[in-house]
Amino acid sequence: MTGLTYRATGVDPTRAEQSLALVRARIARTKRPEVIGDVGAFGGLFASPGADAVLVATTDGVGTKLEVARLLDRHEVVGTDLVNHCVNDAMAMGAEPLFFLDYFSTSRIESGVFARVVGAMADACAAHGCALLGGETAEMPGMYAPGAYDLAGFLVGAVQKERILRPESVRAGDICVGIPSAGLHTNGYTLARAIVARSAATQGKEMIDVLTAPRADLAGRSLGDALLATHRSYLEHFRALRAAVTLRSIAHLTGGGWEGNLPRALPDGLGASIDSGAWQVPAVFRVLADLGGVPEEDQWNTWNMGIGLVAIVPEAEAAAALRAVPEAVVVGHVERARAEGRRIRFS
Amino acid sequence: MTGLTYRATGVDPTRAEQSLALVRARIARTKRPEVIGDVGAFGGLFASPGADAVLVATTDGVGTKLEVARLLDRHEVVGTDLVNHCVNDAMAMGAEPLFFLDYFSTSRIESGVFARVVGAMADACAAHGCALLGGETAEMPGMYAPGAYDLAGFLVGAVQKERILRPESVRAGDICVGIPSAGLHTNGYTLARAIVARSAATQGKEMIDVLTAPRADLAGRSLGDALLATHRSYLEHFRALRAAVTLRSIAHLTGGGWEGNLPRALPDGLGASIDSGAWQVPAVFRVLADLGGVPEEDQWNTWNMGIGLVAIVPEAEAAAALRAVPEAVVVGHVERARAEGRRIRFS
Repeated sequence: MTGLTYRATGVDPTRAEQSLALVRARIARTKRPEVIGDVGAFGGLFASPGADAVLVATTDGVGTKLEVARLLDRHEVVGTDLVNHCVNDAMAMGAEPLFFLDYFSTSRIESGVFARVVGAMADACAAHGCALLGGETAEMPGMYAPGAYDLAGFLVGAVQKERILRPESVRAGDICVGIPSAGLHTNGYTLARAIVARSAATQGKEMIDVLTAPRADLAGRSLGDALLATHRSYLEHFRALRAAVTLRSIAHLTGGGWEGNLPRALPDGLGASIDSGAWQVPAVFRVLADLGGVPEEDQWNTWNMGIGLVAIVPEAEAAAALRAVPEAVVVGHVERARAEGRRIRFS
Repeated sequence: MTGLTYRATGVDPTRAEQSLALVRARIARTKRPEVIGDVGAFGGLFASPGADAVLVATTDGVGTKLEVARLLDRHEVVGTDLVNHCVNDAMAMGAEPLFFLDYFSTSRIESGVFARVVGAMADACAAHGCALLGGETAEMPGMYAPGAYDLAGFLVGAVQKERILRPESVRAGDICVGIPSAGLHTNGYTLARAIVARSAATQGKEMIDVLTAPRADLAGRSLGDALLATHRSYLEHFRALRAAVTLRSIAHLTGGGWEGNLPRALPDGLGASIDSGAWQVPAVFRVLADLGGVPEEDQWNTWNMGIGLVAIVPEAEAAAALRAVPEAVVVGHVERARAEGRRIRFS
């Protein structure tokens, strides 16, 4: 009986190193003045922003959008998505991003895929002036299906104490300003994939066929292409709003859709009335809903329906908010919540 | 054809909420004065430690120890492991822990398992005075085998600028002080599992039988029990060393064993001579190596072999280091590295 080695079990410690080497230059471009030392130490070092600042920490994944990206060989998308998602979450507390770390887990590291995902993360970090400070690459034979991988992102940002966005500051009558999304962003993909799978089965086709066929109801675009639109970062919009108006609070519309997220930007006792006709729900949502026969309420509880971020501002400053962010729309207003049940009311 | 809902696809958004409710009280006990607000916001808030501090950020997983814990229904272990691993990594840069976030990913959340894992994380955070500031729970049907889950942890600590541990400060002749591990900690489990699987196949048994049988060569303990020893936290040892001696640098012996980690605590051009007879290699390593016929070099490149942390101190302070940490042993000394190849030499 021959002896076992770590390599014989399917784990090759040099593979993570070699994969990382492919993206080292792109990671180096994310360096900011606060970063001390190099990647390779047991922890990343970053000069603290000072005692008048508050650190904002957030962690996210990209859910089963991973599977769509994998099926269509579009790995860059999920790398960018992950960073943008984290940036938006930290921003919803009022923070600017400082540094990011990633966790990449798979059964067997494919250097090319790894480099595309992590390279895209590095580029997205650089685009935000955010340092990619570290990461962990885990190779776990047997844990994942062949080719599958999971991603988690961790971001730390900072905000001056007096500029933390506080839902408690929101008042009935305040205006909900929505900024368009690029599509599903990174939420509701399990539902979207189930719809695609059922549609494929009904037509006797493969999922990939349904995902890649150009569609008239998507103006010639394929469903896969629409599903792989990148999760937008709203950092520039946030900065423009912050400079122009009193920003009370922000809801990043992610898992759980409207009811799952907008109340997180409101104090107890308040809800919101949303005019769902104030913007055009993008075609991808209508196509998915029709294909799947998804009840209206489930759509709004799962997907962002075309609005990725809602900023809450005083009524008197709504016009200034729209001037600051020309693509924004007034989507509704804050009101007393009903005694029971749901806090978001659609009209 | 009935309409599809998110719930019908296997994702139940309330399941994550309900699971979290089971551990909320234990998470609350990790709160420190710097924590602002409650869990549920888009990001966790933590007062910044001040501009004379440096933040140290680290991310880790627990690898396929997850699979052993799952097989033996010992989910608490990996929760504690993850926190301790992160604490040790941040400490290797000289940092005390501030806050922790976790990522828990699975195909279907089982509330009981989730509560045991995340509850153990919360308790481990509390034991370190570290805030459990947030987390992400991802439910991804089809991504994981039934019952499988993955974990990632993210920890931010802080160290005063002048107290950062710097490998550049290490000199030839410095002493390597080792502190015992509890076993494999969280590394080398893919090799360990392959050994157990082969041993089971050879005997016509199941893995669980090999893992649960009491063994004379483990003093009556089972292999599974030995494999699930908790990753030790060295925070108390670190504090004792720091108070007593000039601590030059620290290596946390994790993935890659000795050659993969000890050089990370040394400057270019230096290596170490390690006397492998200076401590007793714990029985679990010998049992695994014998069962698997693992070459000596592979053992040392994969496992910690009984030493979880190596602290490097000036020769004149070695005795004081041993007084400060009575269970520590001198395992070797720093020397010029050979021109080529490996930097750790065993004698």
